[in-house]
This record gives sequence, C-alpha cells and structure tokens, in this order.
Amino acid sequence: MDKPDFWDWYNDIIDKTRLKDKRYPLKGMGVWGRYGWKIMANIDRLIRDEMDRAGHDEMCFPLLIPETEFARESEHIKGFQDEVFWVTHAGRRRLDVRSLLRPTSETAMYPIFSLWIRSHADLPLKVYQIAPAFRYETKQTRPFIREREIHFFEAHTCHETYEDAERQIEEDLRILKRIMKKLCIPYLTSKRPEWDKFAGAFYSIGIDTLMPTGEALQLGSIHQYKQNFSKPYEIKIERPDGGHDYVYQTTYGMSERLLGAIIGLHGDDLKLLLPPDIAPIQVVIIPIYSKDTMQKVLEECTAVKETLLDESFRVYLDKRDIRPGRKYYDWELKGIPLRIEIGPKDLKEKVVTFVRIDTGKRTKIKREYIANHAKLILEDISSDLLDTAEEKLKKGVIKARSVEEAKEINSIVTLPWCGKESCGKEMEDRTGKEVLGILDDKMRGNCPICGSESENPVYMAKAI
Amino acid sequence: MDKPDFWDWYNDIIDKTRLKDKRYPLKGMGVWGRYGWKIMANIDRLIRDEMDRAGHDEMCFPLLIPETEFARESEHIKGFQDEVFWVTHAGRRRLDVRSLLRPTSETAMYPIFSLWIRSHADLPLKVYQIAPAFRYETKQTRPFIREREIHFFEAHTCHETYEDAERQIEEDLRILKRIMKKLCIPYLTSKRPEWDKFAGAFYSIGIDTLMPTGEALQLGSIHQYKQNFSKPYEIKIERPDGGHDYVYQTTYGMSERLLGAIIGLHGDDLKLLLPPDIAPIQVVIIPIYSKDTMQKVLEECTAVKETLLDESFRVYLDKRDIRPGRKYYDWELKGIPLRIEIGPKDLKEKVVTFVRIDTGKRTKIKREYIANHAKLILEDISSDLLDTAEEKLKKGVIKARSVEEAKEINSIVTLPWCGKESCGKEMEDRTGKEVLGILDDKMRGNCPICGSESENPVYMAKAI
Repeated sequence: MDKPDFWDWYNDIIDKTRLKDKRYPLKGMGVWGRYGWKIMANIDRLIRDEMDRAGHDEMCFPLLIPETEFARESEHIKGFQDEVFWVTHAGRRRLDVRSLLRPTSETAMYPIFSLWIRSHADLPLKVYQIAPAFRYETKQTRPFIREREIHFFEAHTCHETYEDAERQIEEDLRILKRIMKKLCIPYLTSKRPEWDKFAGAFYSIGIDTLMPTGEALQLGSIHQYKQNFSKPYEIKIERPDGGHDYVYQTTYGMSERLLGAIIGLHGDDLKLLLPPDIAPIQVVIIPIYSKDTMQKVLEECTAVKETLLDESFRVYLDKRDIRPGRKYYDWELKGIPLRIEIGPKDLKEKVVTFVRIDTGKRTKIKREYIANHAKLILEDISSDLLDTAEEKLKKGVIKARSVEEAKEINSIVTLPWCGKESCGKEMEDRTGKEVLGILDDKMRGNCPICGSESENPVYMAKAI
Repeated sequence: MDKPDFWDWYNDIIDKTRLKDKRYPLKGMGVWGRYGWKIMANIDRLIRDEMDRAGHDEMCFPLLIPETEFARESEHIKGFQDEVFWVTHAGRRRLDVRSLLRPTSETAMYPIFSLWIRSHADLPLKVYQIAPAFRYETKQTRPFIREREIHFFEAHTCHETYEDAERQIEEDLRILKRIMKKLCIPYLTSKRPEWDKFAGAFYSIGIDTLMPTGEALQLGSIHQYKQNFSKPYEIKIERPDGGHDYVYQTTYGMSERLLGAIIGLHGDDLKLLLPPDIAPIQVVIIPIYSKDTMQKVLEECTAVKETLLDESFRVYLDKRDIRPGRKYYDWELKGIPLRIEIGPKDLKEKVVTFVRIDTGKRTKIKREYIANHAKLILEDISSDLLDTAEEKLKKGVIKARSVEEAKEINSIVTLPWCGKESCGKEMEDRTGKEVLGILDDKMRGNCPICGSESENPVYMAKAI
C-alpha cells in the first residue's frame, strides 16, 4: 500500500473488521469487539502456552497501587510519574493514600514477592500476568499501538545470582522467537541506550519491528533489573551466616501492539491477513450451488467441516443465503487464511477447491486428503507470511555512512557509534531518528559525530 | 465445622492453599496466587462455554467511564455514587472530566450499543465480558466474597420486545443451572423486593446460597431493565413509519463469589474439596515404593498418567522424594478430588488403588479400567457433592410462623407477606434478617405484620 496512506488504511481496516471500536468517549480507550477480542485471546493463548511450558506461573495482582509502594524505587517513579492515572476519591470521600492504576506491575508485585521469598528454595520465582495497564499517553493515540488502556502481558522473575537472571533473559529470547514465529512477525532485538532504558532497569532489550511507514514499532522489551528493585522492596534470601542477599530480577513485557503489527505487516490494500495460528477461523467453507444442487452441496460441506473439526481446525461453514462472491469478500476482509469452495461438480469428482488467500492460488484436493492438505497449506501460509515479512525487514535495515544519509532514509538505519551519550544524542538530533538500540556485532567505521572508532553500531529509526 | 469458627477456618484454608494472598497493602484487593487463579480460570472457562453456546459474544469494554456517561441514568448513579473509585488526575494534571472505575459496565457499554444498534436486524445483541469491577465496599472485606477489586462476569443483552427480554432471562436461568451443576453449588432464585433491586432495574432476580454460618450469600443476579437504560442511552431501532422504539435490556452478573461458595460449601475442617470440573488437578498419582521397587513403580505410575492424559483428565504424578503420607496431606488440603495409589503389590496384581477424597473410600481397580473408572468416580464425586450440599440447603430453608420465630432461626426462613413495602421493612427490622426475595409459589398464611392475607411468601436471611 502507499506509505503516506498507511494510517488511513490502518484505521479503516480496523473499522471495517470491527477489531476495535474507536468511538468510546475516552481517548486511547477502545472497545474490543467480538472479532478483535477473539484474535487477542488467541495471541494470549500462545503466550500462555509458551510461558507455562517454561515453568512460569500465571497470577493476578491488583490493579491499584498505593502511592507509598510506588514511590520506593526512585528512578521508576521518575520514569512514570507523568503518565499514571491517579485514583483519589472513593464515593464522596477523599482517600487517605491515593492509588495509581498499574502502568506496569513492579510496584504491585514486589512488596508481595518480599513476603514470598525467604530462602534459595523459593527461587527462581517466575510469575506472569495478562491484565490491562494504564498510561496517560500524550502522543497521538492509535488502536492497539498507542492506547491509554493497554492489553498487557508482563512476566517477572527473581533469581539467586546475576548469572541466573541472565539465563532467564536467554530463555525469554527463545520464548520470543517461538511466539513471533507463530505470529509471523519478524523483529530486531537490541540493547536500548542508557538514556532510553526502562525506568529502574540495569539494562533493557528492545524488541522492534519495521512498519510499512518506515517507522519502527516497539513490540516489547526484556529487562535486567539486577538488584535495583530488590533492594528498595527488600526481596532477599537468608545466607547460612545469618546475613542476606538481595535477589536478581528480570521482566519481560509485550502488549496488544502485537496485533497492531500483524495488521500492519500482513494486511494489504483490501484486507487483513491473519497468521493461521491466531485466526479465529482458519478455514472457511463456501458452498456453491443452484436450487437443485443445494441440499447435496450443503451435505458435502457439512461432512468436510466435520472432517476438519475432527482434526482440530477452527472451521466455519458459511450457509448464508447470499452470492458466493459476497462471502469471499467478507471472509477475505477478515483475513481468514484458507477458503474451501465446494460445488456440484466437485461432488462428482470427489474433490474440493482450496484457495490460499495470501496468494489467491487455487488447488483441487481429493476428498480423502483434505485434512492433511489443510494442515500443510496453513503451515505454508504461516511460513510464507513470515518469510515475506522477514525479507522486507532485512531490506528495510539499511547501512548509512553519515548522519545526512541516515536522515534521508525512511527506514531503520545502522550507524557506527563511539558509545558516548553526547554523540548518540547528537545523532538523534541530526537524523531526526531515535537510537533504538545497540547491536551486538562489531561494525567497522567511525562515530559520525566525534570521529572516534566505533564501539558498536546502533539501530536508528523514527519510532511510532 | 463449628459454625462460630467458620470465618477463621475460611481465612486459614485460603492462606494454607495460597488461593489468594491477603497481605496486599490495599483493603479488599488480594493477590491471586497460582492455584487460586487456575481454579478461577476453570470457572471462567465453564461460564464462557455456556455463554458462547447460547450465542453470546465475548468482548472487552474500557475500565474507565467518564462521569458524563455515568450520570445519564439517575437511579443507577444514585445506587453507585457512594461506592465508585474516581480517577481525577493523570500525571500531575487534573483531568477535565473525571472518570470512575467500572463498578459494572452498563454506562460503559450502552453509549456504544446505541451506535451499534440501528434496526431489528441488529437484535438480539448478546454480549458478555469477564473483567475486574471495582466497588468501595465499606462492610468488612473477605477474600472472594467481599472485595473492592472483584473478578466479575457480566452479560448484557438488547431485544426488540419485552417478551424477548423475558425469554432471555429464562435462558439465563437455564445457563445458571448448567453452570451451578458443574460447580456443585445449590442455589435459590427469587425476585428481589422493590427496595432492594439493582439500581436502574425494572426487576432483579437474586441468586443466593446458604453458607455454613447460616447466612445467605448472593452469588449473582439477573436483571430485567425494560427500557430504563435504553431511553437515557438512546439505544433504539427505527420503525418502518419513521419513528423509533427503544430496546429492552437484560443483564446477568456473577463473580469470584462462586469460588468463595465452593470453598465454604465443600471444604471441611481439614481441607478444601474442589468439584472435579474445576479442579486444576483432577487426579493425583502417588507412587509407593521402597528403594528396590522405585523404578518399576514409577514406570507404572507414568504409564497410568499417560493413560489418563490421553483421555483428557487433568492429572499430576507426585514424584517428590518425601513420604506418601505427606503427599496425601498436601493434595487433600488442596482439594484434589481423586487420588490413585500405586505400590509394588499393585504391579503384580495389575491394579491400582483409587481413593475418593470426599468419602475416603478405597477401591482396587484393574489396570485396563482406569480411565473409565476415573470418569465414573469423578462424576459420582461431582453429583454427590451437589446432592449433599442441596440436601443441606433444603434443610436450611425453614418455614417460620412468626417474626419472633424467624428471628431465632439462624438460617434462611420463609414467611408469608402481604406485599407492602412497609410490612416488609418491619419484618426486616424485627427479624434482624433481610428480605432476600419473593418466591413464585403461593404460601397460605397471613402477613406477620399487618395480618392481611399473604400475597407471596418471602425468603429472609442474614446476608453476608
């Protein structure tokens, strides 16, 4: 699609498919319609599966956090104090201690962690929750991408040593890879620069993707806290000698932005395209009949539906009394990845027609291979979606040789960097882009500001 | 258990099983631990299944409601104004319009319903959500039973006619029956008196159960709104003649109190007892071995576990290196309904020992019948739990002949009533009990206050 029109298209496709209704009378707070909520629930399910398998426990902490708890880690409060919603009254009474709505749950969880953790036998503690978070965003809000009520996933872990916490981050990265594969989202990870790390973190890893506008979209982050929170919140374990050690902590956060990325990366001019793993309907069956053949065709469609249900596909048979073309349009718009058409001729030949929505490719499949083939085609669609998007991301990360060149490129650029904050910030000023993060690999060259030899290259981009 | 100690026991068992941690530094807001949250998720799943099957769509509306929307139905605002939490500031800014945290979602949903509904083709609209609600309770808070952050289920429907709305309520009652059967909770339904109906409702049906303390616990409610909300929120459909009709609405609400009831009704002195349909683990397998037999026994246990997993049981094999008796204690405490013990002798005889936790009854089961038998025993436990609790409820609803007698009975009583509010309120004063609701059936007798012939009998009880 044309890049200048991207946000018009984005807003329009969300309206047409009713993913979220943006007309709620509070800015940045939308209504999740039935379709959007189903997709999000499927994304949540993938996340839950991966987290549970890795030994995390799902819990649910309160939404309200008393100011007294919030204020215990000073960097954290500085980072969030301008964007938290405050509850000050209940009924007609002013509250003695005002509370904030969680912008993230460190300050709700850690006073309790300090009660739960007594000895190394209580470690590691690996907890996650999926619950709304609230941030008073002052930039332009956009559905899924910048909301004031955010559908939020956050994992929090406590470990005995720094190395254990580092290993947790490695595990988080592997979990990320598995989730993103199923969501067909390519991504970059990089260490955020000091001036842009999470409020209170020792270091932060940003997870970014490239949107069709040429802007980077942050999809999540992973943080090493070291003992920055465990000290003020007194999360500690006893040592045999009677002393105590503070635990090492990590967090891992993602949000409904995943859905925003899926819409942006896989949709085209006319429609959504949902990765098969999260499509509420993976296969839609469209009967094609005349008055005479209607009954037989519908019977066959029902039989095919049952075959697919038996194999655990999410399948829908569209029996509406409207023309097939209209049905194609409806389901393509909604991004259902695979369509099966069944007409009277197919009955005789004992075949059905598979239509891949991503490519439009039609294939006749024999009746007895339907389930097998549906599995293969959905897998192909999934890997093709990811491959295509990965190719675009690869092409979209461009090596720049100067700040002037970097400024002109409407995409993610890499630039050498000496490692000094002053140079990094000047690079931001002069390119009109933000430093997303620092790459692990070496890149020969010189800092475009001071000319010193580059320590590490950085990713830079306009960020949404 | 001894009734005077009920709340001590209740709080204690919640601590011991870590269902919720009550030490969060805000009153009425607890931390859902892993075990409690899993049980609640299973309860939610039952509710979702029933609602989805009945054609409701799950959605998610914002938590914050601007005061301007909240104020549109005057009875509703009167009913809730003393118990809502107000968000007045964001960051360091005072908000132009303050917002409240949803105490229930009528005033969040209905402005949007008025955008969605245009013609009779948009009806019925059947929506539900499961999301936290917030009420500033001033009575003593208790985990699951009276919280300020409430894990809340609410369904909202719109219909063309009053009769359609009435049919929805009939459907709700059938859904209730199916859910409560699986939760093994016996209940009473009755029409709340005028002075106790939901703020804004035309009438309210209360769903109550009897707790071991002799008090009634409200588990949920179903409301007929008629057009009381659709008029102020302008939810209307066009008539062919150019005029319009306001829709008829119903709601249906339940909460985490369901879990509070399950704990109270089925637990005993020593332990929880979870209905099999919601137990996170339905069957626990305990290996019993000496050093020599360990390997063989564990192999057999694993095989039995796999057999049960194949048949979709939720099963756990406890391999911890501690004495079996300690394991029995742990799992009984947590309320796992069925235990399978496997020792070296069982291997030879190709049997295992089933132990029903509700009765303690032990049965040797042949290896090949394990899955079948587990299914039967879990069904038996479920129906026995419900039968026993239903029997208690039946015995606990006692016909009283006078207010003096009603006052003395520490349970739910029925009394005749003339139908006048003044008499009803005097009955409440003189019995120290609340009128829960009005029964459908006739009961001969005279109003204990004015002596007129009884219109309908009422349920009265102390309410938790």
